[in-house]
Amino acid sequence: MKIYDTKTAPTPRRVRMFLAEKGIAMEYVQVDIAKGVNLTPEMRAKNPLGKVPILELDDGTCISETLAICEYFEALQPEPALLGKTPLEKAQIMQWQQRAELYLFMQVGMCFQHSTGYFKDRMTPVPEYGKEAGINAQKFLHMLNKHLADNTYLAGDAFSIADITALAAIDFARVVKIRIQPEQVHLQRWYDLLQERESVSA
Amino acid sequence: MKIYDTKTAPTPRRVRMFLAEKGIAMEYVQVDIAKGVNLTPEMRAKNPLGKVPILELDDGTCISETLAICEYFEALQPEPALLGKTPLEKAQIMQWQQRAELYLFMQVGMCFQHSTGYFKDRMTPVPEYGKEAGINAQKFLHMLNKHLADNTYLAGDAFSIADITALAAIDFARVVKIRIQPEQVHLQRWYDLLQERESVSA
Repeated sequence: MKIYDTKTAPTPRRVRMFLAEKGIAMEYVQVDIAKGVNLTPEMRAKNPLGKVPILELDDGTCISETLAICEYFEALQPEPALLGKTPLEKAQIMQWQQRAELYLFMQVGMCFQHSTGYFKDRMTPVPEYGKEAGINAQKFLHMLNKHLADNTYLAGDAFSIADITALAAIDFARVVKIRIQPEQVHLQRWYDLLQERESVSA
Repeated sequence: MKIYDTKTAPTPRRVRMFLAEKGIAMEYVQVDIAKGVNLTPEMRAKNPLGKVPILELDDGTCISETLAICEYFEALQPEPALLGKTPLEKAQIMQWQQRAELYLFMQVGMCFQHSTGYFKDRMTPVPEYGKEAGINAQKFLHMLNKHLADNTYLAGDAFSIADITALAAIDFARVVKIRIQPEQVHLQRWYDLLQERESVSA
């Protein structure tokens, strides 16, 4: 199997980190999204939405969407668990994964796409919305800082996919000048803790 | 346990449908989001993001985010499976769940929030973005129609959470005048098939 990947983009990084945490080796095929290689008919046959990452199995079956690829590998190789084991762990991890995805990762992405016009050849940027999305991301970081005063990781005591999603979002947010603020000490503590993991450089 | 619900909103409907498919009885507590009851300190203690639905367990533990609540009940009561059983089924269902959520459900929601100004007391609507979000949703319906030419349900042969997400989005899209088009016959076939399920009125 292989994964169509873009080394510089924040979404595929989440899958690389997830697999690094699992210790799963993978063949990565680089796709130049700046040149729109992801939008060619060949790539659209693998994912009609024209996005990476895409997992291609040996029989040609393709799976896209980060969470779907991660679910696949969690089911194939449950240890170490990154999506939880008990019903409550699964729910609490997915709660924070979805919060990190919808209210942080996507907001940072929308801020980038709508403020910079990076993909203006394939979408209509609305700069005013880009600004709002950036404000939303900053509000989420404020809430997350409070949450991390009482929690080691996003979903509590154990590192999970939710931490991967939040870290990828925060690292990418530098591109739109959104950073952890000096007063967000709990968020910074969590961020520093994650830097000790080998997977951050995956 | 109980669920804080808003009968008229599209997001909590997904959880109601999911539980109806599982045959799980639930106590629902109505929250008036138009009046901002979801934003009170009491409700923010249950979900700091001020959104419904929220599942409250008997010990007071709260879980929000639709997918997290659904994962909880799937783990508690696996049958009938709505999130897949094998690694590949899980991945394919999550792929379509995420596509339906990010590129349809959320786009319809953004179109509604930014075009109508319904929540202008608590956010800054950007009407130009609302229009773009509506266009995005319509493009997704076009792609989905093609996909459903060869698939009974979104993720293939079996009804899943992905169908619930797409149906809730399409039904809510009427509010912003986005409808299945007469030429989208495969999408209409799928929509009509879903109307036979008791859960659509949950």
